[in-house]
Amino acid sequence: MKQSGKKAVVLLSGGLDSATVVAMAHDQGYHVHALSFRYGQRHSVELTAAEAVAKQLGVAEHKIAELDLRLFGGSALTADIAVPKDRTEDAMTADIPITYVPARNTIFLSFALAYAEVSGAGDIFIGVNALDYSGYPDCRAEYIRAYETMANLATKAGVSGERPLRIQAPLIDMTKADIIKTGTALGVDYGLTISCYDPDDAGRACGHCDSCLLRKKGFREAGVDDPTRYQKRHDSFQR
Amino acid sequence: MKQSGKKAVVLLSGGLDSATVVAMAHDQGYHVHALSFRYGQRHSVELTAAEAVAKQLGVAEHKIAELDLRLFGGSALTADIAVPKDRTEDAMTADIPITYVPARNTIFLSFALAYAEVSGAGDIFIGVNALDYSGYPDCRAEYIRAYETMANLATKAGVSGERPLRIQAPLIDMTKADIIKTGTALGVDYGLTISCYDPDDAGRACGHCDSCLLRKKGFREAGVDDPTRYQKRHDSFQR
Repeated sequence: MKQSGKKAVVLLSGGLDSATVVAMAHDQGYHVHALSFRYGQRHSVELTAAEAVAKQLGVAEHKIAELDLRLFGGSALTADIAVPKDRTEDAMTADIPITYVPARNTIFLSFALAYAEVSGAGDIFIGVNALDYSGYPDCRAEYIRAYETMANLATKAGVSGERPLRIQAPLIDMTKADIIKTGTALGVDYGLTISCYDPDDAGRACGHCDSCLLRKKGFREAGVDDPTRYQKRHDSFQR
Repeated sequence: MKQSGKKAVVLLSGGLDSATVVAMAHDQGYHVHALSFRYGQRHSVELTAAEAVAKQLGVAEHKIAELDLRLFGGSALTADIAVPKDRTEDAMTADIPITYVPARNTIFLSFALAYAEVSGAGDIFIGVNALDYSGYPDCRAEYIRAYETMANLATKAGVSGERPLRIQAPLIDMTKADIIKTGTALGVDYGLTISCYDPDDAGRACGHCDSCLLRKKGFREAGVDDPTRYQKRHDSFQR
């Protein structure tokens, strides 16, 4: 891993995508300041995964911000609403999913902006992906560019041009299979990551939510062995 | 107060400016959904003031979001750094003040965006003011417009044009005296508000921090009696 002294804040959820982004930023020579959130998600295993990924990939610093998005309700990820299972890909993308958390990327990027301002980072990396989640407006390149414009007007370093801020979304046009191939080449241990919307307390994936289905398909298409730990009771239904 | 059924999210700090904005939004016929933050600020009297203001002005709903900005350190409002006292106005605006919290407006607006999305509000009001705080990049009209553009790309209602979002900053070009005159005409009880960066536990203002000095000057220039409760030990030094 090359290290040039330049710093980046990388949003790290503990999932497959953001782990890959940490590895990509690292490979590009950034000192990675990873940022995760305890935001009222039902499953703290995500944060355990984020910590393991941060350690495996050797980040410079890892901070966990506390905030409570349950206040606004409305998502299966933060409220007590059932996670949909075994849906077709058409059904997944037909509408804004129940797992959508209002304005989540906007909120997460805003904390990343604060972290960048304090740490002196000139880049923020986010693992959004337009292909797999076409239903989320805040996963599109147009949104990311508008966020970058706003961010450069929000801070003194941005306004003066002394340290213009870039929002990098390197996965935005990649398929899940491409992401997995890229991360595998960079040494990401995907066995540490968790994508499942409905894992058990031991961090084992359900194998049937939208996120599990997309992840399985990604490993299959990448021709990479899937190291995910699945819950035994669901094993017989695995696709 | 006219009520037309349209909803607005209004950022409410418990200070003089945001109380005025609540009254202005109310006067324009909005159902006000007020949003305050427990963000690791040293003084919870701010939130007590926000609750009193929300009650006095009869908002439709008042939510308090929990988040911890102390994580990033660096501000006298969240860390144990002394608040500067008795500075000249030139000194106040010469540099980014020690009371600056990194990316705070960006973070607060992002939570307001989540709240607007869930409540169906088409407007977000924020009490930023370019004249009094020229040192903050995120208090300028250019920043507010860029935030609005980004916000309209972040949500489905914005992207589809079904419910375009407006960020309103009605105080942006007003002097403190104008703000006080406007709020007084709309029935704001400024005795409930607190602007001080260094109040005592009873919510009495120090009278000497930048915010107290600007507030005092505002009341003086507006020709309105200052209802602020000051700490007794500082009374003899009041300007």
